[in-house]
Amino acid sequence: MKSIRGIVFDLYGTLYDVDSVARACEEAFAGQGDAIARMWRQKQLEYTWLRSLMERYVNFESATEDALRFTCAARGLALDAPALRRLSGQYLRLDPYPDMPAALRRLKDAGLALGIVSNGSHNSIGQVVANSGMNWAFDELISVEEVQVFKPHKKVYLLAENRMGHPRANLVFVSSNGWDASAASLFGFRVCWVNRANAPLDELGATLEQVVPDLGAMADWVLSQP
Amino acid sequence: MKSIRGIVFDLYGTLYDVDSVARACEEAFAGQGDAIARMWRQKQLEYTWLRSLMERYVNFESATEDALRFTCAARGLALDAPALRRLSGQYLRLDPYPDMPAALRRLKDAGLALGIVSNGSHNSIGQVVANSGMNWAFDELISVEEVQVFKPHKKVYLLAENRMGHPRANLVFVSSNGWDASAASLFGFRVCWVNRANAPLDELGATLEQVVPDLGAMADWVLSQP
Repeated sequence: MKSIRGIVFDLYGTLYDVDSVARACEEAFAGQGDAIARMWRQKQLEYTWLRSLMERYVNFESATEDALRFTCAARGLALDAPALRRLSGQYLRLDPYPDMPAALRRLKDAGLALGIVSNGSHNSIGQVVANSGMNWAFDELISVEEVQVFKPHKKVYLLAENRMGHPRANLVFVSSNGWDASAASLFGFRVCWVNRANAPLDELGATLEQVVPDLGAMADWVLSQP
Repeated sequence: MKSIRGIVFDLYGTLYDVDSVARACEEAFAGQGDAIARMWRQKQLEYTWLRSLMERYVNFESATEDALRFTCAARGLALDAPALRRLSGQYLRLDPYPDMPAALRRLKDAGLALGIVSNGSHNSIGQVVANSGMNWAFDELISVEEVQVFKPHKKVYLLAENRMGHPRANLVFVSSNGWDASAASLFGFRVCWVNRANAPLDELGATLEQVVPDLGAMADWVLSQP
Protein backbone atom coordinates (compact mmCIF):
# COMPACT_ATOMS: atom_id res chain seq x y z
CA MET A 1 0.00 0.00 0.00
CA LYS A 2 1.12 3.54 -0.74
CA SER A 3 1.75 5.70 2.30
CA ILE A 4 -0.91 8.21 3.22
CA ARG A 5 -0.34 11.90 2.49
CA GLY A 6 -3.83 13.28 2.92
CA ILE A 7 -7.46 12.54 3.73
CA VAL A 8 -10.47 13.74 1.81
CA PHE A 9 -13.84 13.60 3.53
CA ASP A 10 -17.43 13.56 2.41
CA LEU A 11 -19.43 16.17 4.35
CA TYR A 12 -23.14 15.33 4.77
CA GLY A 13 -23.59 12.36 7.09
CA THR A 14 -19.84 11.71 7.28
CA LEU A 15 -18.37 14.67 9.18
CA TYR A 16 -21.65 16.46 9.88
CA ASP A 17 -24.81 14.96 11.33
CA VAL A 18 -27.95 15.58 9.29
CA ASP A 19 -30.23 14.54 12.17
CA SER A 20 -30.88 18.17 13.04
CA VAL A 21 -32.79 18.37 9.75
CA ALA A 22 -35.21 15.74 11.04
CA ARG A 23 -35.71 17.75 14.24
CA ALA A 24 -36.55 20.87 12.25
CA CYS A 25 -38.98 18.84 10.11
CA GLU A 26 -40.63 17.55 13.29
CA GLU A 27 -41.08 21.10 14.55
CA ALA A 28 -42.70 22.11 11.27
CA PHE A 29 -44.80 18.95 10.81
CA ALA A 30 -45.40 17.28 14.17
CA GLY A 31 -45.37 13.49 14.10
CA GLN A 32 -43.89 13.32 10.59
CA GLY A 33 -40.37 14.69 11.08
CA ASP A 34 -38.46 11.45 10.59
CA ALA A 35 -40.51 10.30 7.61
CA ILE A 36 -40.20 13.69 5.90
CA ALA A 37 -36.46 13.96 6.54
CA ARG A 38 -35.89 10.43 5.22
CA MET A 39 -37.88 10.98 2.01
CA TRP A 40 -36.35 14.42 1.56
CA ARG A 41 -32.80 13.04 1.83
CA GLN A 42 -33.64 10.17 -0.55
CA LYS A 43 -35.12 12.56 -3.13
CA GLN A 44 -32.23 14.98 -2.68
CA LEU A 45 -29.79 12.21 -3.65
CA GLU A 46 -32.05 11.01 -6.49
CA TYR A 47 -32.22 14.50 -7.95
CA THR A 48 -28.42 14.86 -7.85
CA TRP A 49 -28.06 11.54 -9.69
CA LEU A 50 -30.85 12.19 -12.19
CA ARG A 51 -29.74 15.73 -13.00
CA SER A 52 -26.15 14.54 -13.43
CA LEU A 53 -27.30 11.84 -15.87
CA MET A 54 -29.54 14.33 -17.68
CA GLU A 55 -26.63 16.78 -17.86
CA ARG A 56 -28.85 19.44 -16.28
CA TYR A 57 -26.89 20.47 -13.22
CA VAL A 58 -28.36 22.80 -10.65
CA ASN A 59 -26.53 23.50 -7.43
CA PHE A 60 -27.11 21.45 -4.29
CA GLU A 61 -29.26 24.11 -2.62
CA SER A 62 -31.66 24.06 -5.57
CA ALA A 63 -31.80 20.26 -5.67
CA THR A 64 -32.42 20.29 -1.92
CA GLU A 65 -35.32 22.73 -2.23
CA ASP A 66 -36.75 20.76 -5.19
CA ALA A 67 -36.61 17.57 -3.14
CA LEU A 68 -38.40 19.19 -0.19
CA ARG A 69 -41.11 20.56 -2.47
CA PHE A 70 -41.69 17.09 -3.91
CA THR A 71 -41.67 15.46 -0.47
CA CYS A 72 -44.29 17.82 0.93
CA ALA A 73 -46.46 17.49 -2.20
CA ALA A 74 -46.25 13.69 -2.00
CA ARG A 75 -47.42 13.78 1.62
CA GLY A 76 -50.13 16.34 1.00
CA LEU A 77 -48.47 19.00 3.16
CA ALA A 78 -48.60 22.73 2.47
CA LEU A 79 -45.15 24.30 2.30
CA ASP A 80 -44.95 28.08 2.14
CA ALA A 81 -41.87 30.03 1.09
CA PRO A 82 -40.68 30.88 4.63
CA ALA A 83 -40.94 27.21 5.70
CA LEU A 84 -39.07 26.12 2.57
CA ARG A 85 -36.27 28.57 3.36
CA ARG A 86 -36.19 27.71 7.06
CA LEU A 87 -36.04 23.94 6.52
CA SER A 88 -33.56 24.08 3.62
CA GLY A 89 -31.43 26.43 5.71
CA GLN A 90 -30.95 23.59 8.19
CA TYR A 91 -28.42 22.13 5.76
CA LEU A 92 -26.20 25.16 6.47
CA ARG A 93 -26.22 24.72 10.26
CA LEU A 94 -25.26 21.11 10.86
CA ASP A 95 -23.49 19.82 13.93
CA PRO A 96 -20.25 17.88 13.55
CA TYR A 97 -20.42 14.36 14.89
CA PRO A 98 -19.18 14.50 18.50
CA ASP A 99 -15.99 12.55 17.70
CA MET A 100 -15.15 14.64 14.66
CA PRO A 101 -13.05 17.57 16.04
CA ALA A 102 -10.74 15.32 18.08
CA ALA A 103 -10.27 12.85 15.23
CA LEU A 104 -9.36 15.61 12.79
CA ARG A 105 -7.01 17.20 15.31
CA ARG A 106 -5.06 13.93 15.59
CA LEU A 107 -4.78 13.62 11.80
CA LYS A 108 -3.78 17.26 11.45
CA ASP A 109 -1.13 16.92 14.15
CA ALA A 110 0.29 13.96 12.23
CA GLY A 111 0.97 16.30 9.31
CA LEU A 112 -1.69 15.01 6.96
CA ALA A 113 -3.45 17.29 4.47
CA LEU A 114 -7.21 17.34 5.12
CA GLY A 115 -9.96 18.25 2.70
CA ILE A 116 -13.69 18.03 2.11
CA VAL A 117 -15.22 17.10 -1.25
CA SER A 118 -18.95 17.60 -1.23
CA ASN A 119 -22.02 17.81 -3.43
CA GLY A 120 -22.70 21.09 -1.62
CA SER A 121 -21.93 24.41 -3.23
CA HIS A 122 -18.88 26.41 -2.19
CA ASN A 123 -21.23 28.60 -0.19
CA SER A 124 -22.85 25.66 1.62
CA ILE A 125 -19.58 23.96 2.48
CA GLY A 126 -18.07 27.22 3.66
CA GLN A 127 -21.04 28.04 5.89
CA VAL A 128 -21.26 24.57 7.46
CA VAL A 129 -17.55 24.55 8.28
CA ALA A 130 -17.50 28.14 9.54
CA ASN A 131 -20.70 27.78 11.61
CA SER A 132 -19.12 24.84 13.41
CA GLY A 133 -15.82 26.60 14.01
CA MET A 134 -13.86 23.99 12.07
CA ASN A 135 -11.98 26.15 9.55
CA TRP A 136 -8.67 25.32 11.27
CA ALA A 137 -8.95 21.69 10.16
CA PHE A 138 -9.13 21.89 6.38
CA ASP A 139 -6.55 22.64 3.72
CA GLU A 140 -9.08 22.29 0.89
CA LEU A 141 -12.85 22.76 0.67
CA ILE A 142 -13.84 21.25 -2.65
CA SER A 143 -17.28 21.61 -4.24
CA VAL A 144 -18.73 19.75 -7.21
CA GLU A 145 -19.74 23.21 -8.46
CA GLU A 146 -16.36 23.35 -10.19
CA VAL A 147 -17.23 20.40 -12.44
CA GLN A 148 -21.04 20.92 -12.57
CA VAL A 149 -21.84 17.28 -11.95
CA PHE A 150 -22.55 15.43 -8.71
CA LYS A 151 -21.00 12.34 -7.12
CA PRO A 152 -20.37 9.57 -8.08
CA HIS A 153 -19.22 10.95 -11.45
CA LYS A 154 -15.47 10.45 -11.71
CA LYS A 155 -14.92 14.13 -12.53
CA VAL A 156 -15.63 14.80 -8.84
CA TYR A 157 -13.03 12.36 -7.56
CA LEU A 158 -10.52 13.60 -10.12
CA LEU A 159 -11.13 17.17 -8.95
CA ALA A 160 -10.50 16.06 -5.36
CA GLU A 161 -7.25 14.34 -6.32
CA ASN A 162 -6.02 17.39 -8.20
CA ARG A 163 -6.94 19.85 -5.47
CA MET A 164 -5.38 17.71 -2.72
CA GLY A 165 -2.15 17.66 -4.70
CA HIS A 166 -1.23 14.03 -4.06
CA PRO A 167 -1.76 10.94 -6.23
CA ARG A 168 -5.00 9.09 -5.48
CA ALA A 169 -3.07 6.07 -4.17
CA ASN A 170 -1.64 8.30 -1.43
CA LEU A 171 -5.02 9.70 -0.42
CA VAL A 172 -7.64 8.17 1.86
CA PHE A 173 -11.24 8.90 0.96
CA VAL A 174 -13.64 8.82 3.92
CA SER A 175 -17.40 8.59 3.46
CA SER A 176 -20.38 7.21 5.35
CA ASN A 177 -22.22 6.57 2.08
CA GLY A 178 -21.53 3.09 0.73
CA TRP A 179 -22.12 4.14 -2.89
CA ASP A 180 -19.74 7.10 -2.52
CA ALA A 181 -17.08 4.94 -0.86
CA SER A 182 -17.52 2.32 -3.62
CA ALA A 183 -17.12 4.82 -6.44
CA ALA A 184 -14.09 6.40 -4.75
CA SER A 185 -12.48 2.98 -4.37
CA LEU A 186 -13.08 2.08 -8.02
CA PHE A 187 -11.56 5.46 -8.91
CA GLY A 188 -8.37 4.45 -7.09
CA PHE A 189 -8.44 6.17 -3.71
CA ARG A 190 -7.67 4.22 -0.56
CA VAL A 191 -11.07 4.12 1.12
CA CYS A 192 -12.32 4.05 4.69
CA TRP A 193 -16.09 3.59 4.96
CA VAL A 194 -17.62 5.02 8.15
CA ASN A 195 -20.45 2.54 8.49
CA ARG A 196 -22.25 3.94 11.54
CA ALA A 197 -25.46 2.03 10.83
CA ASN A 198 -23.71 -1.31 10.31
CA ALA A 199 -25.39 -1.53 6.90
CA PRO A 200 -24.48 -3.97 4.14
CA LEU A 201 -22.30 -2.51 1.40
CA ASP A 202 -24.06 -1.42 -1.79
CA GLU A 203 -23.60 -4.03 -4.52
CA LEU A 204 -21.66 -1.91 -6.99
CA GLY A 205 -18.69 -4.16 -7.61
CA ALA A 206 -16.25 -2.45 -5.25
CA THR A 207 -14.11 -3.78 -2.41
CA LEU A 208 -13.32 -1.28 0.34
CA GLU A 209 -9.98 -1.28 2.10
CA GLN A 210 -11.32 -0.45 5.55
CA VAL A 211 -14.67 -0.25 7.34
CA VAL A 212 -15.03 1.48 10.70
CA PRO A 213 -17.94 2.37 13.00
CA ASP A 214 -16.98 6.01 13.66
CA LEU A 215 -14.47 8.80 13.04
CA GLY A 216 -12.35 7.92 16.06
CA ALA A 217 -11.78 4.44 14.64
CA MET A 218 -11.07 6.03 11.27
CA ALA A 219 -8.26 8.12 12.78
CA ASP A 220 -6.91 5.08 14.66
CA TRP A 221 -6.71 3.13 11.41
CA VAL A 222 -5.13 5.94 9.38
CA LEU A 223 -2.47 6.56 12.05
CA SER A 224 -1.68 2.84 12.23
CA GLN A 225 -0.75 2.68 8.56
CA PRO A 226 2.96 2.61 7.63
CA MET B 1 -47.79 20.64 -32.27
CA LYS B 2 -46.27 18.24 -34.74
CA SER B 3 -48.52 15.37 -35.79
CA ILE B 4 -47.90 12.03 -34.18
CA ARG B 5 -46.20 9.29 -36.20
CA GLY B 6 -45.31 6.83 -33.47
CA ILE B 7 -45.38 6.02 -29.77
CA VAL B 8 -42.51 4.78 -27.69
CA PHE B 9 -43.30 3.17 -24.35
CA ASP B 10 -41.41 2.49 -21.18
CA LEU B 11 -41.89 -1.15 -20.12
CA TYR B 12 -41.62 -1.74 -16.34
CA GLY B 13 -44.58 -0.22 -14.55
CA THR B 14 -45.88 1.48 -17.68
CA LEU B 15 -47.06 -1.37 -19.97
CA TYR B 16 -46.32 -4.22 -17.58
CA ASP B 17 -47.35 -4.48 -13.94
CA VAL B 18 -44.52 -5.21 -11.52
CA ASP B 19 -46.94 -6.14 -8.70
CA SER B 20 -46.41 -9.84 -9.40
CA VAL B 21 -42.87 -9.35 -8.09
CA ALA B 22 -44.28 -8.32 -4.71
CA ARG B 23 -46.48 -11.44 -4.66
CA ALA B 24 -43.45 -13.66 -5.30
CA CYS B 25 -41.53 -11.84 -2.54
CA GLU B 26 -44.46 -12.45 -0.18
CA GLU B 27 -44.39 -16.18 -0.99
CA ALA B 28 -40.66 -16.30 -0.25
CA PHE B 29 -40.71 -14.03 2.83
CA ALA B 30 -44.18 -14.06 4.40
CA GLY B 31 -45.33 -10.73 5.82
CA GLN B 32 -42.52 -8.76 4.13
CA GLY B 33 -43.39 -9.04 0.44
CA ASP B 34 -44.44 -5.44 -0.14
CA ALA B 35 -41.57 -3.95 1.86
CA ILE B 36 -39.02 -6.13 0.08
CA ALA B 37 -40.41 -5.45 -3.38
CA ARG B 38 -40.47 -1.69 -2.71
CA MET B 39 -36.88 -1.56 -1.44
CA TRP B 40 -35.74 -3.88 -4.23
CA ARG B 41 -37.30 -1.67 -6.92
CA GLN B 42 -35.81 1.45 -5.33
CA LYS B 43 -32.32 -0.09 -5.17
CA GLN B 44 -32.67 -1.46 -8.70
CA LEU B 45 -33.26 2.08 -9.99
CA GLU B 46 -30.48 3.51 -7.78
CA TYR B 47 -28.01 0.99 -9.11
CA THR B 48 -28.90 1.82 -12.73
CA TRP B 49 -28.35 5.53 -11.99
CA LEU B 50 -25.17 5.04 -9.97
CA ARG B 51 -23.59 2.62 -12.43
CA SER B 52 -24.44 4.95 -15.31
CA LEU B 53 -22.78 7.86 -13.51
CA MET B 54 -19.80 5.68 -12.61
CA GLU B 55 -19.55 4.55 -16.24
CA ARG B 56 -19.63 0.95 -15.03
CA TYR B 57 -22.59 -0.50 -16.89
CA VAL B 58 -23.84 -3.97 -16.13
CA ASN B 59 -27.03 -5.24 -17.71
CA PHE B 60 -30.41 -4.84 -16.05
CA GLU B 61 -30.59 -8.47 -14.90
CA SER B 62 -27.30 -8.06 -13.03
CA ALA B 63 -28.37 -4.76 -11.45
CA THR B 64 -31.65 -6.42 -10.47
CA GLU B 65 -29.88 -9.33 -8.78
CA ASP B 66 -27.45 -6.95 -7.05
CA ALA B 67 -30.38 -4.92 -5.73
CA LEU B 68 -32.12 -8.01 -4.36
CA ARG B 69 -28.93 -9.19 -2.66
CA PHE B 70 -28.57 -5.80 -0.97
CA THR B 71 -32.24 -5.71 0.03
CA CYS B 72 -32.14 -9.13 1.70
CA ALA B 73 -28.85 -8.31 3.44
CA ALA B 74 -30.27 -5.01 4.73
CA ARG B 75 -33.28 -6.84 6.16
CA GLY B 76 -31.23 -9.70 7.61
CA LEU B 77 -32.80 -12.31 5.33
CA ALA B 78 -30.95 -15.33 3.94
CA LEU B 79 -31.14 -15.55 0.15
CA ASP B 80 -29.85 -18.71 -1.50
CA ALA B 81 -29.01 -19.00 -5.19
CA PRO B 82 -32.27 -20.73 -6.21
CA ALA B 83 -34.35 -18.04 -4.44
CA LEU B 84 -32.31 -15.30 -6.10
CA ARG B 85 -32.92 -16.85 -9.52
CA ARG B 86 -36.62 -17.49 -8.85
CA LEU B 87 -37.34 -13.98 -7.60
CA SER B 88 -35.25 -12.21 -10.24
CA GLY B 89 -36.94 -14.37 -12.87
CA GLN B 90 -40.24 -12.70 -11.95
CA TYR B 91 -39.09 -9.71 -13.99
CA LEU B 92 -39.34 -11.91 -17.11
CA ARG B 93 -42.94 -12.98 -16.50
CA LEU B 94 -44.87 -9.78 -15.94
CA ASP B 95 -48.53 -9.28 -16.72
CA PRO B 96 -49.56 -6.42 -18.97
CA TYR B 97 -51.88 -3.91 -17.32
CA PRO B 98 -55.45 -5.04 -18.10
CA ASP B 99 -56.12 -2.05 -20.36
CA MET B 100 -52.84 -2.43 -22.29
CA PRO B 101 -53.72 -4.83 -25.16
CA ALA B 102 -56.88 -2.94 -26.21
CA ALA B 103 -55.15 0.46 -26.00
CA LEU B 104 -52.26 -0.71 -28.17
CA ARG B 105 -54.66 -2.35 -30.67
CA ARG B 106 -56.42 1.01 -31.17
CA LEU B 107 -53.11 2.83 -31.74
CA LYS B 108 -51.89 0.11 -34.07
CA ASP B 109 -55.13 0.21 -36.09
CA ALA B 110 -54.64 3.97 -36.47
CA GLY B 111 -51.40 3.25 -38.33
CA LEU B 112 -48.99 4.45 -35.65
CA ALA B 113 -45.56 2.86 -35.20
CA LEU B 114 -45.22 1.39 -31.69
CA GLY B 115 -42.04 0.66 -29.79
CA ILE B 116 -40.65 -0.10 -26.35
CA VAL B 117 -37.49 1.51 -24.97
CA SER B 118 -36.43 -0.10 -21.73
CA ASN B 119 -33.61 -0.42 -19.25
CA GLY B 120 -34.07 -4.17 -19.68
CA SER B 121 -31.72 -6.19 -21.85
CA HIS B 122 -32.80 -7.37 -25.29
CA ASN B 123 -33.36 -10.77 -23.75
CA SER B 124 -35.55 -9.43 -20.92
CA ILE B 125 -37.68 -7.25 -23.18
CA GLY B 126 -38.11 -10.06 -25.68
CA GLN B 127 -39.17 -12.55 -23.03
CA VAL B 128 -41.63 -10.22 -21.31
CA VAL B 129 -43.30 -9.33 -24.61
CA ALA B 130 -43.34 -12.94 -25.91
CA ASN B 131 -44.56 -14.41 -22.59
CA SER B 132 -47.54 -12.05 -22.70
CA GLY B 133 -48.36 -12.78 -26.35
CA MET B 134 -47.87 -9.14 -27.36
CA ASN B 135 -45.33 -9.48 -30.19
CA TRP B 136 -47.97 -8.34 -32.70
CA ALA B 137 -48.04 -4.86 -31.20
CA PHE B 138 -44.47 -3.64 -31.53
CA ASP B 139 -42.41 -2.45 -34.48
CA GLU B 140 -39.32 -1.87 -32.35
CA LEU B 141 -38.04 -3.38 -29.09
CA ILE B 142 -35.22 -1.10 -27.98
CA SER B 143 -32.81 -1.90 -25.15
CA VAL B 144 -30.32 0.39 -23.43
CA GLU B 145 -27.84 -2.45 -23.98
CA GLU B 146 -27.03 -0.84 -27.32
CA VAL B 147 -25.70 2.30 -25.63
CA GLN B 148 -24.47 0.70 -22.36
CA VAL B 149 -26.00 3.35 -20.17
CA PHE B 150 -29.39 3.52 -18.43
CA LYS B 151 -32.19 6.09 -18.48
CA PRO B 152 -32.33 9.04 -18.11
CA HIS B 153 -29.09 9.51 -20.10
CA LYS B 154 -29.92 11.22 -23.36
CA LYS B 155 -28.15 8.51 -25.37
CA VAL B 156 -31.14 6.29 -24.55
CA TYR B 157 -33.73 8.75 -25.87
CA LEU B 158 -31.61 9.44 -28.94
CA LEU B 159 -31.40 5.70 -29.60
CA ALA B 160 -35.19 5.49 -29.36
CA GLU B 161 -35.67 8.38 -31.78
CA ASN B 162 -33.28 6.82 -34.30
CA ARG B 163 -34.78 3.37 -34.08
CA MET B 164 -38.36 4.64 -34.38
CA GLY B 165 -37.35 6.47 -37.55
CA HIS B 166 -39.30 9.67 -36.94
CA PRO B 167 -38.17 13.02 -35.52
CA ARG B 168 -38.64 13.32 -31.75
CA ALA B 169 -41.26 16.05 -32.21
CA ASN B 170 -43.42 13.51 -34.07
CA LEU B 171 -43.08 10.84 -31.39
CA VAL B 172 -45.01 10.47 -28.15
CA PHE B 173 -43.07 9.05 -25.22
CA VAL B 174 -45.22 7.23 -22.65
CA SER B 175 -43.95 6.41 -19.17
CA SER B 176 -45.39 5.95 -15.69
CA ASN B 177 -42.14 7.18 -14.14
CA GLY B 178 -42.18 10.93 -13.59
CA TRP B 179 -38.40 11.22 -13.85
CA ASP B 180 -38.37 9.26 -17.12
CA ALA B 181 -41.22 11.34 -18.55
CA SER B 182 -39.42 14.52 -17.44
CA ALA B 183 -36.13 13.56 -19.09
CA ALA B 184 -37.92 12.51 -22.29
CA SER B 185 -39.75 15.84 -22.41
CA LEU B 186 -36.54 17.83 -21.92
CA PHE B 187 -35.03 15.72 -24.73
CA GLY B 188 -37.80 16.90 -27.06
CA PHE B 189 -40.36 14.09 -27.27
CA ARG B 190 -44.03 14.83 -26.88
CA VAL B 191 -44.76 13.19 -23.54
CA CYS B 192 -47.75 11.49 -21.97
CA TRP B 193 -47.22 10.59 -18.29
CA VAL B 194 -49.31 7.66 -17.08
CA ASN B 195 -49.72 8.78 -13.48
CA ARG B 196 -51.64 5.83 -12.02
CA ALA B 197 -50.80 6.73 -8.42
CA ASN B 198 -51.80 10.39 -8.82
CA ALA B 199 -48.34 11.36 -7.58
CA PRO B 200 -46.78 14.82 -7.80
CA LEU B 201 -44.35 15.29 -10.66
CA ASP B 202 -40.66 15.01 -9.81
CA GLU B 203 -39.09 18.48 -9.55
CA LEU B 204 -36.62 18.18 -12.41
CA GLY B 205 -37.51 21.31 -14.34
CA ALA B 206 -39.73 19.69 -16.98
CA THR B 207 -43.27 20.44 -18.11
CA LEU B 208 -45.18 17.46 -19.47
CA GLU B 209 -47.63 17.86 -22.34
CA GLN B 210 -50.22 15.39 -21.04
CA VAL B 211 -50.95 13.46 -17.84
CA VAL B 212 -53.42 10.55 -17.81
CA PRO B 213 -54.52 7.99 -15.22
CA ASP B 214 -54.22 4.87 -17.41
CA LEU B 215 -53.38 3.48 -20.84
CA GLY B 216 -56.97 3.75 -22.13
CA ALA B 217 -56.90 7.50 -21.46
CA MET B 218 -53.46 7.64 -23.09
CA ALA B 219 -54.89 6.13 -26.30
CA ASP B 220 -57.90 8.47 -26.17
CA TRP B 221 -55.59 11.47 -25.98
CA VAL B 222 -53.23 10.32 -28.74
CA LEU B 223 -56.12 9.59 -31.10
CA SER B 224 -57.69 13.00 -30.36
CA GLN B 225 -54.58 14.84 -31.60
CA PRO B 226 -54.67 16.42 -35.08
